[in-house]
Amino acid sequence: MTEYNAFLSPTGRHLHESAIRRMGTVVAKAPDLVSFAAGYPDPSLFPWDDFREIAAQLLTGADPTVLQYGPTRGYTPLLDATIDVLAGRGIKADLNELLITTGSQQGLDLVARVLVSPGDVVLVELPAYTGGISAFKNVQAHLVGVQQDDEGIDLDDLDAVLVRERGGGRKVNLLYLVPNFQNPTGRLLSLDKRHLLLEWAERRDVLIVEDDPYGALFFDDVATEEETRPIRADDARGRVIYLSTYSKTLAPGFRVGWMVAPAELADRFETAKQSIDLTSGVLDQRLVHEAIQRGLLETLAPRLRNLYKHKRDVMERSLREQLGTLLSWPSPKGGFFLWATLPPGEEDNALLLRALEKQLVFVIGSAFYVDGNGHDKIRLSFSAPTPERIPEGVRRLAAALTST
Amino acid sequence: MTEYNAFLSPTGRHLHESAIRRMGTVVAKAPDLVSFAAGYPDPSLFPWDDFREIAAQLLTGADPTVLQYGPTRGYTPLLDATIDVLAGRGIKADLNELLITTGSQQGLDLVARVLVSPGDVVLVELPAYTGGISAFKNVQAHLVGVQQDDEGIDLDDLDAVLVRERGGGRKVNLLYLVPNFQNPTGRLLSLDKRHLLLEWAERRDVLIVEDDPYGALFFDDVATEEETRPIRADDARGRVIYLSTYSKTLAPGFRVGWMVAPAELADRFETAKQSIDLTSGVLDQRLVHEAIQRGLLETLAPRLRNLYKHKRDVMERSLREQLGTLLSWPSPKGGFFLWATLPPGEEDNALLLRALEKQLVFVIGSAFYVDGNGHDKIRLSFSAPTPERIPEGVRRLAAALTST
Repeated sequence: MTEYNAFLSPTGRHLHESAIRRMGTVVAKAPDLVSFAAGYPDPSLFPWDDFREIAAQLLTGADPTVLQYGPTRGYTPLLDATIDVLAGRGIKADLNELLITTGSQQGLDLVARVLVSPGDVVLVELPAYTGGISAFKNVQAHLVGVQQDDEGIDLDDLDAVLVRERGGGRKVNLLYLVPNFQNPTGRLLSLDKRHLLLEWAERRDVLIVEDDPYGALFFDDVATEEETRPIRADDARGRVIYLSTYSKTLAPGFRVGWMVAPAELADRFETAKQSIDLTSGVLDQRLVHEAIQRGLLETLAPRLRNLYKHKRDVMERSLREQLGTLLSWPSPKGGFFLWATLPPGEEDNALLLRALEKQLVFVIGSAFYVDGNGHDKIRLSFSAPTPERIPEGVRRLAAALTST
Repeated sequence: MTEYNAFLSPTGRHLHESAIRRMGTVVAKAPDLVSFAAGYPDPSLFPWDDFREIAAQLLTGADPTVLQYGPTRGYTPLLDATIDVLAGRGIKADLNELLITTGSQQGLDLVARVLVSPGDVVLVELPAYTGGISAFKNVQAHLVGVQQDDEGIDLDDLDAVLVRERGGGRKVNLLYLVPNFQNPTGRLLSLDKRHLLLEWAERRDVLIVEDDPYGALFFDDVATEEETRPIRADDARGRVIYLSTYSKTLAPGFRVGWMVAPAELADRFETAKQSIDLTSGVLDQRLVHEAIQRGLLETLAPRLRNLYKHKRDVMERSLREQLGTLLSWPSPKGGFFLWATLPPGEEDNALLLRALEKQLVFVIGSAFYVDGNGHDKIRLSFSAPTPERIPEGVRRLAAALTST
């Protein structure tokens, strides 16, 4: 039979598999599992009735464009509505800076393809979101990690790493980070650091890729809306490419995200998208647009914040009750994730294998590290399981931890 | 301000813009235009009532997975249904050879990224579909054209080109072609040539990328279903990657296509897709799946064939009546396109500019040629305009042609 290895490109040979997606496949095959793995939103707050009504209105055939191909930039009224959403976050964006993407994962892929050459350094947090890591690895980026402290990325380490890499002759173009309720740590980057990062990017001639899926999901006992102000909101020099999505605030099944970039780059991203998927789903964009027009983002946001805060509380309480001081973690200030440090001697892969035997799944910490570290960490997502299932999952985690 | 050129990757610097998409943007801005440009399906046959009913059933919230993230491979029942669709075309495919894609354009992009290294030769038809050209150019492929005759690609030229390119030290991995009602020529590749291509691919160790969006849309006065049998149907050696879509048989706003590839490659494509868009639209996949379960593909296919055949007739009659022998073309045997040769001395770009003044748009022939030729051709799509508007468009074309 045909030998396919010889046909593979460098990308094809060195594809980086998503640990989170792999766990998702495991879950799909074992419905009895408790999953703390994928960062799936809670479907109980998907606005089903609204979407059913909107679909009934859109699918009459009166407007034939609803199921037709659409412009690569996106459905114009949705672009306009997204500009208003951005304004609510302090970001002033023009139409020529905006592009609808097939989920914000496509934004990461577009950035990687248009801005990263093989061997270029992309700076990422230690730890960093695996979907970002994969997108950059698949264009043969050289990923270099930067330390974090409790307030987010360590600026001294950042500059030291940049100087070292440039000194070694490498091109360093991009810094990728998730300032709001970082995936996987749940951390919030301080406002001071956000301002200093802009100055640093200008001084060092770097672009910042700001990935913000969780900004709207702050927990009001420990974080404020003001603290989630995007870096892009204060970017006067065109240093930031901002990515976000409706997946966490409406529903992810639609695959509707967006990116804001300097107009010149937005043009390039649009052209690249033409040959990637022509257009994002047109019905999806129409459904999301009508949902925004109905005010659902405003209605849902406080309910989402309360729900996820409650789930965080349930998870933290369960962990304390059932595990005592066996695990430690920074209390999540928003978003979907709790980032736990394992007891000395415990290892993430070995623990996962034992957890799977007990019908529990989570994501291993090392999947988020580009420097080979993180085997003493695990990511526990509290967003998808019901508040009733979370203690059961923690019970299984406790059993796995003590079954060595 | 920031100078962005220095940030661009080779892909970002040399992005290939889609002439068809550019024309689409023109159309969107001038609704009074007659468009023979984009190959949009006729929305009058989109099954609106069915989709409205299906959406109402899916969006009750009873099944929360309808709006959730889904597996990267695709929604399993849709994969199963697609295996049946493939069987109807003579293709026996297993689940591990199949992947749902975000439109079949994503299939092209996946093939390009996983199988083509910068500088590799990809063999394409003269002329070839621009979306294929763009996908391969954007991974820095070296595109080399192969002549066609009335029965499709010229096998002597194909082998001569391969020998020449390999002799020059280049890697030649892939042949890209559209056997059924080719975009842009409307031609049908003969069954003899399909068999000979399989032998050639095996002998020369090449993979064939078979792009088949239009196979179901044969015109029964000049073509039979048997003549559309995919190359993949007789591929015993794993030489063919087969791409298709529901965009032309149900509706394109959903972005649901698929690819069939040898299992080992399908795994690679799946992994690549993880970092590209995680999953294709989940609601879209559910809607398409339910539409298939309702038998809509079977119900619609003869109606689609008759409608597009009728439109082809209207366009050919209008062209003969209003232009006499000024244009010549091979009569389309199926699909969406008529490929016209201009009178001596006429040039595609100049004609398009004059046509735009008269509110008519089409795609220039040279956009489909990788060797710089084609300026004596234009592609006229008869699929989207109503039978009433086609003669008006042809009238404008006649006016543009005689206004030099």
